[in-house]
Amino acid sequence: MRYCSQCGAGVTLTVPEGDNMPRHVCQDCGTIHYQNPKIVVGCIPEWGDRLLLCRRAIEPRYGLWTLPAGFMENGETVQQGAARETFEEAEARVEVGALYALFNLPHINQVYMLFRARLLAPEFGPGSESLEAELMTEAEIPWEEIAFPVIQESLQLYFRDRAAGRFPLRAGSIRRLDGPERRYEVTLEDAPL
Amino acid sequence: MRYCSQCGAGVTLTVPEGDNMPRHVCQDCGTIHYQNPKIVVGCIPEWGDRLLLCRRAIEPRYGLWTLPAGFMENGETVQQGAARETFEEAEARVEVGALYALFNLPHINQVYMLFRARLLAPEFGPGSESLEAELMTEAEIPWEEIAFPVIQESLQLYFRDRAAGRFPLRAGSIRRLDGPERRYEVTLEDAPL
Ligand SMILES: [Zn+2]
Ligand SMILES: [Zn+2]
Repeated sequence: MRYCSQCGAGVTLTVPEGDNMPRHVCQDCGTIHYQNPKIVVGCIPEWGDRLLLCRRAIEPRYGLWTLPAGFMENGETVQQGAARETFEEAEARVEVGALYALFNLPHINQVYMLFRARLLAPEFGPGSESLEAELMTEAEIPWEEIAFPVIQESLQLYFRDRAAGRFPLRAGSIRRLDGPERRYEVTLEDAPL
Repeated sequence: MRYCSQCGAGVTLTVPEGDNMPRHVCQDCGTIHYQNPKIVVGCIPEWGDRLLLCRRAIEPRYGLWTLPAGFMENGETVQQGAARETFEEAEARVEVGALYALFNLPHINQVYMLFRARLLAPEFGPGSESLEAELMTEAEIPWEEIAFPVIQESLQLYFRDRAAGRFPLRAGSIRRLDGPERRYEVTLEDAPL
């Protein structure tokens, strides 16, 4: 951020009075431009014992598999956003159920919220951002070709919980480790209360 | 938003190619400026059978009572944000537990996430944005002086669940109704799955 979106003047990075973090503050009109994490909403769409995954037609991670998910939009609820993304990316209509996975990705300022969901019919297809969409059993999941660690972790937890017959809310954090390789640290919350 | 924060040129509201929503797009450098909902994180801080509330020293809703909560910051987790807000507003240190209330406020593009939390010690006080902080039993909650509907609803659900001896995740939406009066519609999610 270099210019004020309200008046077009230059902004400087400074700690406003009464604040404790540097913010982009307009040198002319004084507007403080806060920057906050974004919510990524998505579904774990179930049809019998199979889940609906889609293969990415866009970067990053072109060609790899993921669950339908994307940035929540203004004016919608998290559940509506999860259903919208499932329709946009996998052309499937779902009933959205309980929140299942809540993951922090603090290194990229994202919070992932994945909901369990049930397909209304076994109808789906690749949306404009997908190469293909497919219903998969656990044995068919292409574990070596999953696009993002948060999806890999959520799917692993999901199948473990399904085998145990219960779906508690799973919460945790995933941080990218320093270095050129794509390596991540996964921390699960114990939720003592 | 009237000016591009990257280059300072004017922005126009238009639907970018391949998109289905109007966005602020820079007429010069082409940057698409997305606007997304913000996350409000907070705690329901417990000490024995009492909860820690604070009385607002700032607008909106100056002088009314609330749970410690505020906008999540970049670089932190939702749990860290909830703990930070509890320290800033009520000068209390907490162990953050499970997510308890997840509420959409689509009319103001906010998602509330309130966590159960346990005070590490019965030490607290008014932060700079609070007039006072107080541990209250259920009977002491000033129901007519709660600052926000989402806090009122979450506290009511909390005490009902506490009486029943269980704390499932509560999810719902709160929308402000049209008209000059402050009237709201509360919808709770059934979570069929
Ligand atoms: Zn300005
Ligand atoms: Zn520009």
